[in-house]
Amino acid sequence: MRLLQERIRKEGKVLPGNIIKIDGFLNHQVDISLMREIAREFRRLFPQEDITKILTVEASGIALGAITALEFNVPLVFAKKAKSDNIEGGLFKSDIYSYTYKKKVTLLLSKQWLCENDNVLIVDDFLANGEALRGLIEIVTQSGASLAGVGVAVEKGFQQGGAKLREQGVNLKSLAIVEEATPEHIRFRDEE
Amino acid sequence: MRLLQERIRKEGKVLPGNIIKIDGFLNHQVDISLMREIAREFRRLFPQEDITKILTVEASGIALGAITALEFNVPLVFAKKAKSDNIEGGLFKSDIYSYTYKKKVTLLLSKQWLCENDNVLIVDDFLANGEALRGLIEIVTQSGASLAGVGVAVEKGFQQGGAKLREQGVNLKSLAIVEEATPEHIRFRDEE
Repeated sequence: MRLLQERIRKEGKVLPGNIIKIDGFLNHQVDISLMREIAREFRRLFPQEDITKILTVEASGIALGAITALEFNVPLVFAKKAKSDNIEGGLFKSDIYSYTYKKKVTLLLSKQWLCENDNVLIVDDFLANGEALRGLIEIVTQSGASLAGVGVAVEKGFQQGGAKLREQGVNLKSLAIVEEATPEHIRFRDEE
Repeated sequence: MRLLQERIRKEGKVLPGNIIKIDGFLNHQVDISLMREIAREFRRLFPQEDITKILTVEASGIALGAITALEFNVPLVFAKKAKSDNIEGGLFKSDIYSYTYKKKVTLLLSKQWLCENDNVLIVDDFLANGEALRGLIEIVTQSGASLAGVGVAVEKGFQQGGAKLREQGVNLKSLAIVEEATPEHIRFRDEE
């Protein structure tokens, strides 16, 4: 997606550890007009008429998830990362490793909000090692729902998450795949 | 807001400790059509043409924040709750007490995303003790921005957060104020 690539090139900042900082429009301040364009692109890439739910994970996936759910005219459900008092029993659970927080994190989703009749589109803002998406896919599997696909805004193509998911046959679409990121230069994989 | 009150009455579940569970449409599964109606009501209640940013806090405020930002056609910014590696220095900070997690939490917002030229509308899904909103207002004050107002979906009128904010002169609008919640009965404050 040309528009997204241009924004990353213009405003992205590469920090040590291959961190690509684009929090001026994606995941701290959020450019909602751009999210809307991304959501419309997901609509084009996942034209199935029978998608029933958009699934993401807190926190930074929620903004894109909400705008995507608006575009698809279906509810958003988001997995939580820690057990709060407000979640009762009856949970789908998946343990993932968070590279951001350098520890194990359990993704939780109430069993009430996904069932075998659902056809789920997972969306997230970022894909690097793919742990969050692996956890979300595991939750979809536990629920018995179908997985329509996975839509990602920005994929770090030089990390292994995307490759692993594609090998497993997941219908993954990333709108900007960064192949190489240095403080001087950001290079994208050619668009399909 | 009649529509929201009806949904709370129909689907809300009151748990011990005065917890009002409405996570089937507000903060776990999210009814995006309802969020859109709430955002339009905020637009009516905050008709100022010069609002430049919608501010909320992760995680559950983000869905409503994103849809509100779309309605106002301005960026969303959300405060984070813990220091991750991806946040650099230069932060506005406010310490709050989280009743959900029963511990002190620091709200963080990069100084890049709010400045004295901004006119900020804060939104959140829930208001009980008002700690999160107090923290967000403190961050707006630190930034030198103006506070246009605070829009809340559901306020627990029997807790003190709303009263405290109104006493301080905050332009707070809550779309459903629950005065009393028992497993048998939910009563709302009359609409203005």
